[in-house]
Amino acid sequence: MAGFDDSAKKLLNRLRDDHQSGATELALNTLRELAACVEATDPAAEELKGLLAELRKARPSMIVIGNAMARVESALEDGDTPLASVDQVTRELENASIAIAEHARQQIPANAVIMTHSASSAVLGLFRLLAREQHRFCVICTQSSPGMEGHQLALALDDLGVPVTLITDAQMALFVPRADVVVSGCDTWLADGHFVNKSGTRLLALAARAHHKPFWVLGDSFRHSDQATSDVSLEEMPVSELHAPAGDWITPRNIYFETIPASLVTGRINEQGVF
Amino acid sequence: MAGFDDSAKKLLNRLRDDHQSGATELALNTLRELAACVEATDPAAEELKGLLAELRKARPSMIVIGNAMARVESALEDGDTPLASVDQVTRELENASIAIAEHARQQIPANAVIMTHSASSAVLGLFRLLAREQHRFCVICTQSSPGMEGHQLALALDDLGVPVTLITDAQMALFVPRADVVVSGCDTWLADGHFVNKSGTRLLALAARAHHKPFWVLGDSFRHSDQATSDVSLEEMPVSELHAPAGDWITPRNIYFETIPASLVTGRINEQGVF
Repeated sequence: MAGFDDSAKKLLNRLRDDHQSGATELALNTLRELAACVEATDPAAEELKGLLAELRKARPSMIVIGNAMARVESALEDGDTPLASVDQVTRELENASIAIAEHARQQIPANAVIMTHSASSAVLGLFRLLAREQHRFCVICTQSSPGMEGHQLALALDDLGVPVTLITDAQMALFVPRADVVVSGCDTWLADGHFVNKSGTRLLALAARAHHKPFWVLGDSFRHSDQATSDVSLEEMPVSELHAPAGDWITPRNIYFETIPASLVTGRINEQGVF
Repeated sequence: MAGFDDSAKKLLNRLRDDHQSGATELALNTLRELAACVEATDPAAEELKGLLAELRKARPSMIVIGNAMARVESALEDGDTPLASVDQVTRELENASIAIAEHARQQIPANAVIMTHSASSAVLGLFRLLAREQHRFCVICTQSSPGMEGHQLALALDDLGVPVTLITDAQMALFVPRADVVVSGCDTWLADGHFVNKSGTRLLALAARAHHKPFWVLGDSFRHSDQATSDVSLEEMPVSELHAPAGDWITPRNIYFETIPASLVTGRINEQGVF
């Protein structure tokens, strides 16, 4: 069916070319477009499996997308229709964010000062839930250089009417003592208990440990990986983002992600609860 | 003597208005200008003491300047002439940097990867000595946001032909495992054993501890203070440096300095040796 091929190609290109959306957002967009494509073109099982395999490979550093596509394949193998399979996984992923916020809320004391680094959709989900339920709390967040995604988080909190203190990454250890609790997103859970997140997260975890602050990590089960710390290749972004001075002997580096050992984590929170 | 009053006023204004030079550089410039002023105007002892008292108070957050002026007062009280007093303290301060580099060099292994944060004149003195003596070494340095003084350090190393890896502050924990030794400058030694340095230094010290890397702190005895950690007021710079988004609920903070506990320090190196 020619309609499917065209539609699949567009879907793949959109997934490959979107460098703005976070992993969960991009996975959800892809699932919704996949549902529309399946509904409009009614592909054969083999065609759909081929597309799912390509979608899995399209963004290797975003494990959520690969795992979501694997769950669709698995539902198909269990005999669900293509549309039911896609819809089921979409619901699982949507509900995971809500469930994480509900579980995480139990760990936040009244009138809490909550500190975080970078901008995680799961952490923002928690903030939205607290704001919606009119909890009183405030946030300390880092700028998160060079991407400065902390600015977006600060603006989202500003929209919610939540007081937010915005600091340079270098001030993390200065501000951890003023926080009651530290929360972090999680890019990938690794098989050996470590997790991958934005560079700087390990510094925040070390500072939290030094000042006896709880350090909670929020991330759904779509982020589970079979890899161990030693297998992980950490994505490096263009060094032009650093605006570093040029020099024959100067090598700027811009590694976006790092691994954080489980020993620094108070607990992990996914859609099933607190671990 | 009218010439002294004019000359003293200019000297004080230059000291107050110089926001570019580091503390040691500014102290040395002030001492040299003071020597020229004394030589040209031959002030009475009381006039000179009055000026020294004002110079001590001019830059309260730069302890080196206050301590240098106190040492000149003390030499005067011991009966030295004004010019001899100023010259003696100038020599002490100049020689301190050289002696620190000599002592610190003993702690640097062959072919070392040396990591540092921000830009310290004592640390740069060590790098210059190693380069002059044709030691093979390379450096990992942070940008040190928002001032980005790491860029100046990287350029100085580039001039020396020393390979330097320049990273965001957030990548500190990623790169500490690649270093053999970590060195830091020191703004002020406090009476309770802690020291004051650029924000981010405590994060680097925590990361060094976590990865079992030696963490050496370089700073001369002109940096000793009678204050304890609890007495220290840490300088905050204009938040405009953060280029943060505006919002009714957003409060950017830009605290330049933090205290670092002695428990994280392998040793302190001043002009007398290693402690």
